[in-house]
Amino acid sequence: MQALRLINNSEAVSEWTVNRLSLYSRLLATLDTEGLTVVSSKELAERIHFTATQIRKDLACFGQFGKRGIGYEIFNLRRAINEILGVHLRRKVVLIGVVNLGSALLGYRVLREHNFEIVAAFDSDPKIWAQELNSVLIQSPDGLCEVVQAQQIEIGIIAVPLQAAQKALNLLILSGIRAILNFVPARLTTPRNVQLRNVDLSIGLECLSYFLQHEARQVRR
Amino acid sequence: MQALRLINNSEAVSEWTVNRLSLYSRLLATLDTEGLTVVSSKELAERIHFTATQIRKDLACFGQFGKRGIGYEIFNLRRAINEILGVHLRRKVVLIGVVNLGSALLGYRVLREHNFEIVAAFDSDPKIWAQELNSVLIQSPDGLCEVVQAQQIEIGIIAVPLQAAQKALNLLILSGIRAILNFVPARLTTPRNVQLRNVDLSIGLECLSYFLQHEARQVRR
Repeated sequence: MQALRLINNSEAVSEWTVNRLSLYSRLLATLDTEGLTVVSSKELAERIHFTATQIRKDLACFGQFGKRGIGYEIFNLRRAINEILGVHLRRKVVLIGVVNLGSALLGYRVLREHNFEIVAAFDSDPKIWAQELNSVLIQSPDGLCEVVQAQQIEIGIIAVPLQAAQKALNLLILSGIRAILNFVPARLTTPRNVQLRNVDLSIGLECLSYFLQHEARQVRR
Repeated sequence: MQALRLINNSEAVSEWTVNRLSLYSRLLATLDTEGLTVVSSKELAERIHFTATQIRKDLACFGQFGKRGIGYEIFNLRRAINEILGVHLRRKVVLIGVVNLGSALLGYRVLREHNFEIVAAFDSDPKIWAQELNSVLIQSPDGLCEVVQAQQIEIGIIAVPLQAAQKALNLLILSGIRAILNFVPARLTTPRNVQLRNVDLSIGLECLSYFLQHEARQVRR
């Protein structure tokens, strides 16, 4: 678990709260396509299965959005959440490690739909340098710092083999990147002013395992 | 958002609750390595940044675990959660779509650490049939049903190109698979008795975007 480093209005806001904002934004988008215009925290809670108190508490970190007795205006709340998340702006992303997961991320259109654009890719394997993948040039890591600074890239993604992960992280930090998404199951150390998020792809499988486990239990009864 | 289909003790349990169980299990593992033996819901809440009420409510769905005034025994609670999640058992997984993300998943050791094992892989590209990747043979989808039934595989992962996603899903369902993890950003339709989980890799980036957005706001002040 990561320490609290996300601050707003001088008050600590956890990454869990921020992750829930992402989920609220997606739910509001769904409600919008369903033709709804107003929703209560109770209705949101029923759809997303948090408590209504949790939702109100999360949103209260950032201001006063709902109207008592009426609820939240869906379009405005979603716009406000997207601005809080900063996803109303296009963010440039650099990728280290193109083989395997990296190449998949270059073709993963969901990132672009959410305003994230991988604009540069680096790999330590000289055999793939100068190749293009989804219109992104693969380059030697030697040039990373220069590219990050010239293109004002804000976010780094690490998708290198396990043993190369800390080196890749250090290189990103040296280039000035302060926000990093790590797909490598390594314990990495970062300075306090760098935000590192680790992605654990096994969480989704555990939810499926629960379903299978419970189903088996029902059958046994 | 997915409808409620996870039931325990005749009561609906949402996939969010189940995802939180995964997080609690990881936090408890961390506390265990820190040498702690007992923890209160308040202390858990402080570490994981949910409300203590949320944590107690989640756990209460599955039984009585804590002792009033003392808290939860870390080792026992983690074992109980892992049994609820069914991750104390090894689960066999089949992968459809090996190019790009699929090949990355075959080498992603976190899955095996959490007791998920990809035992068979299928791809529509004949050029890679009969190749082995991380000791897993890549085969033609024509043989999928037979392999799933012979090996009693329980979980399917879809990592095919967008336009092939529904076909891959249908094939998994025909083979008898009832729990599916989908990495493709497609809206797929499933029968009610199949559990489909979609993985959205952009959520982690939105958390980083929040950090950058807030940092920029602080600098502007």
